[in-house]
Amino acid sequence: MVIKSPSPGRLTIGVFDSGFGGLTVLRALLPLIPAAHYIYLGDTARLPYGSKSRETIARYAVSSAKFLHQQGAELLVIACNTATALALEDIQHALPIPVIGVIQPGAQAALQTPSPSHKSSFRPERSEVEKPASVPQVSGHNHVLVLATTATVRSHAYTHALNALGLAAHEKACPLLVPLVEEGWINHPVTDDVLKIYLTEALTADPATQTLLLGCTHYPLLQPAIQRVLTSLGHPLTVIDSADATARATAALVATHFPSLSVTGDPTTTFYATDSIEKFQRLGSNFLSQPLKEVHLLDLGG
Amino acid sequence: MVIKSPSPGRLTIGVFDSGFGGLTVLRALLPLIPAAHYIYLGDTARLPYGSKSRETIARYAVSSAKFLHQQGAELLVIACNTATALALEDIQHALPIPVIGVIQPGAQAALQTPSPSHKSSFRPERSEVEKPASVPQVSGHNHVLVLATTATVRSHAYTHALNALGLAAHEKACPLLVPLVEEGWINHPVTDDVLKIYLTEALTADPATQTLLLGCTHYPLLQPAIQRVLTSLGHPLTVIDSADATARATAALVATHFPSLSVTGDPTTTFYATDSIEKFQRLGSNFLSQPLKEVHLLDLGG
Repeated sequence: MVIKSPSPGRLTIGVFDSGFGGLTVLRALLPLIPAAHYIYLGDTARLPYGSKSRETIARYAVSSAKFLHQQGAELLVIACNTATALALEDIQHALPIPVIGVIQPGAQAALQTPSPSHKSSFRPERSEVEKPASVPQVSGHNHVLVLATTATVRSHAYTHALNALGLAAHEKACPLLVPLVEEGWINHPVTDDVLKIYLTEALTADPATQTLLLGCTHYPLLQPAIQRVLTSLGHPLTVIDSADATARATAALVATHFPSLSVTGDPTTTFYATDSIEKFQRLGSNFLSQPLKEVHLLDLGG
Repeated sequence: MVIKSPSPGRLTIGVFDSGFGGLTVLRALLPLIPAAHYIYLGDTARLPYGSKSRETIARYAVSSAKFLHQQGAELLVIACNTATALALEDIQHALPIPVIGVIQPGAQAALQTPSPSHKSSFRPERSEVEKPASVPQVSGHNHVLVLATTATVRSHAYTHALNALGLAAHEKACPLLVPLVEEGWINHPVTDDVLKIYLTEALTADPATQTLLLGCTHYPLLQPAIQRVLTSLGHPLTVIDSADATARATAALVATHFPSLSVTGDPTTTFYATDSIEKFQRLGSNFLSQPLKEVHLLDLGG
C-alpha cells in the first residue's frame, strides 16, 4: 500500500521502547530518514518488560502503540526486542499503519554479515559443524548466538526468524545485563565476569557459533566489554547490533509506503516517558548520543 | 481506636509488596498472628518499584492498597520498603483502616539490637566515632548502615526514622541486589563481588558502622553472602532483617485495635499477582518457605 502523508514532503514516525534502549534505534534512524518528525515513547513506569509474561507485555505494548498513533504516527518502529518478540502481531492488528520490529531486520543482518577474520580456538564437536541438509551453504556464520531478555528467549522469536533464513540459532537469556547497563557498569570487572559466565555457557552449548546477535537494545552499550570477553575466551565472533539493521529496514519500508518523501531534511523529535523525566533525560542521552531537550511525562493509566 | 471485626475471633490482614519480597514478612506474620486470614498482593506486572519516581510508586501502591481493602482487609501491612518510604502517608490517607509499613519497625529493631560480639578491624577516623551531643549514649551500635533500593535511599525515610531514635544513619543504594536475587544467584561469586563493592564503599564512608539494616525485603535471602563478605572485610556487623520486626509491630497493632482476636488459630491465605501466576508460585515459595497453592491473576489496569 502507498499511504498519503498529511504533509507530503514530511512523515511522522513513532518509535516505541519499554525504556531507553530504543534510543539507539532512533539514533540510527535520524540520518537515514531525515525528512521526518519522530515521536519516541519510553514506557519507563512499567519497565522492564523482559521479565514479564506475554499477556502483560502485549497489553502494555498495544496501549503504548495506540498512543503514538493517536499522536499522528504514520509508521511505527517497535524498537524493543521483548515487545517485538511478544506483541508485534498484536500491535499490527491494533493499528492501521505499517509497523516494523527489530527481530526480522536483526535476523536478516545475521544472514548478510561476513565471518570473523580470526579463527576460533574452540574445538567444536564434529556433529556441530556438519551443516543440516536444509541449511543453505552460508560459509562460517550459519550458527548464530542471540543474547536477549528472558521473555524474548522464551518466545523463541529469534529462533523462528533465523531458522526461516536457514541459520541455526542458540538463544541465551541474560537477565543481569540490563540492570548492569542501568547501573552504569559499562566497563566494569563485575560486568566482564557476568558476560564471561553467560558467553561461556552459550559457547559451550554451541561451539560452532560464529555470529553474535545482540537481541536487546540495551546491549550495544556493552560492545567493548563483549569484545574484551570474547578475546579472553579465544572465540572471536561477528557482533550484530540490530539498531542499524532496523533503521535500514525502516528506510526501505518508507521508500515503499511513502515514495514522495524527501530524502533530505532536518529531523525533529518529541519524547514521552511514563516515569521520571529527569531520569529519562539523564540516562537517555547515553543511548541517543545527544541531549534530550524536551521530554513530556505521560500517564498511560498503569 | 478499637475496630470491630466482622468475625470477632478472626481478622483479615492485607499484605502488599511490589513482588515476592514481602512474602518474608508474611512468613513471619503467620505464627505470630495465627487467627487471621491473609490476602497477599504482589504487583509483579509493575515491579520493580525501586528504580521509579515517587509519583509513580505512590500511584501504584495506593491502587494496590485500595484493592486489598475492597477484598475485606481490616488492617494493611506494606511489606515493601520502597512503597513504605515513598507512599505510606498516601496509603494511610486513602484508607480508613490501620496501615503499617516496614521502616519504623526496622528502625526500632536497630535501636534495640545488641552490638556484634567481634571487634572490627576497620580503623575509623576520630571524628567518626565521636558521638554528637544530640545522640543518646547507645553504646556500640549507634551508626546504622541501611542497604536499600535507589528510590528508598533517595527518600531518606530510613535516615529520618533512625535519626528520630537518636541513631546515625548511612544509606547505600544497591540496585543490582534485587536482579541478582531474582536470577537465583544467592550464593554466587559475582554476588559476593557486588556485595563487596557496595559494602566497602559504605563502610569506607562510615567506618564506625556497627549495625546493618536490610532495607529491602529481597535482601534477607542474601544473609549468608552478606555474612561471608563482612567476614572477608574484617568488619562484623549485627544484621537486622525488618521482616521479623514488622511482624512483631503488627502483632502489637493488632493487640491494640482488635483486642478480642484469638491468639490461637490456623492462618489461611489468598494470593494475588498482577503478572505470571506460574512465576509467582515458583519464585514465591523461596521467600515464603512453603508452596503457594492458589494464586489469582489480577488486572489493576496498568
